Amino acid sequence: MKAAYRTGFVDVEAHMRECMKDSAHDAEHVYRVLFYALDIARHEGGADTEKLATACLLHDIGRQAQFADPRVDHAVCGALMAREWLSENGRDEKFAEAVAHCIETHRFRSGNPPRSIEAKILFDADKIDVCGAVGIARTLLYKTHVSEPLYLLGEDGEVLDGAKDALPSFMQEYKFKLENIYDRFYTKRGTELAAKRRTAAKNFYDSLLAEIRECCSFAKGGAN
Amino acid sequence: MKAAYRTGFVDVEAHMRECMKDSAHDAEHVYRVLFYALDIARHEGGADTEKLATACLLHDIGRQAQFADPRVDHAVCGALMAREWLSENGRDEKFAEAVAHCIETHRFRSGNPPRSIEAKILFDADKIDVCGAVGIARTLLYKTHVSEPLYLLGEDGEVLDGAKDALPSFMQEYKFKLENIYDRFYTKRGTELAAKRRTAAKNFYDSLLAEIRECCSFAKGGAN
Repeated sequence: MKAAYRTGFVDVEAHMRECMKDSAHDAEHVYRVLFYALDIARHEGGADTEKLATACLLHDIGRQAQFADPRVDHAVCGALMAREWLSENGRDEKFAEAVAHCIETHRFRSGNPPRSIEAKILFDADKIDVCGAVGIARTLLYKTHVSEPLYLLGEDGEVLDGAKDALPSFMQEYKFKLENIYDRFYTKRGTELAAKRRTAAKNFYDSLLAEIRECCSFAKGGAN
Repeated sequence: MKAAYRTGFVDVEAHMRECMKDSAHDAEHVYRVLFYALDIARHEGGADTEKLATACLLHDIGRQAQFADPRVDHAVCGALMAREWLSENGRDEKFAEAVAHCIETHRFRSGNPPRSIEAKILFDADKIDVCGAVGIARTLLYKTHVSEPLYLLGEDGEVLDGAKDALPSFMQEYKFKLENIYDRFYTKRGTELAAKRRTAAKNFYDSLLAEIRECCSFAKGGAN
């Protein structure tokens, strides 16, 4: 009932929840992406809301396959799954193809950029959820999921800031991805929404690094 | 080699790493607690550094037992484990008892408060690691570990702030524990170190709530 209340796309939403039933957090991410996308669409104009909302709801249905086998690209796999499911559920080929294009091109590291306005909006909406405090929280959740540490120590025991780290950590993810995402948006509204969140993420990273460095500085005066 | 470099308490540290070998994050927490404790001890005076450092290194060795069976209190269990291990390794009963007291009383929710200066310092050092950005990061990591969500929605779809939530979430943990920890320290130096970190934690919580609420406000204008 809450599902229907929240989107109005009852069947697509039910299918999304079925595909993501093992992860309540992922479903909340999907709703946030949908809500950002609808807001961007209102500001930008020209997008087909049905295509866009369908693509938002289904954009991460390939995640489970990627978790099971990291060689799978969840965007490519999710696009295939969405196209098939939409065809099986009576949507025409043109609609299914438009939705699949959005899903296939939504990934940050993809060499396959979004071309349609709906695909650009999904890309931006998904990236807003990597910005700010929400982006920090989601990255920390993900790092736990894949058993990666908060930070790494250098050869002399100093706390590394992530900028040149060779191994994965939260700090590395911040420097390699989170810090640089704000200039990568396709729409004006997406850029604006992201920019508002930039300071919260930077402040958290700066505080975290300063706290850990302060702590480790105490070791020098007292460990022996 | 890095272990010896970092503390100087080689055998105790090796035992700690053995007890916590499944969790690299937990060992980093233990080092931070040790470094805070040594700093507090330098400022406060009067503490026995060997008892204190031993208690810091071993304070969470009961964690695995608590994860395996939530009815186990890791502080009580860890104190027993430490007393036994120290006796087996040639430390006298008085030393083992002093260390066990520190470990047994370090828990936030315990009805068994720390009495010795070493126990008060361990309590404070452990609580500093719940403050600030580090405390936020650790809480997010822990919430993932126990599969709890970032936030909950009320009956009408509004984002709850955690203050009156009946079910667990990151927001609830912030309001019930993290927000109130700053007045619970035993030492002056512990209170000072914690106070410096308060704003970073509050800013993160405020930003996270504002971002999610903004996102959900978009749903009203565009979901149907």
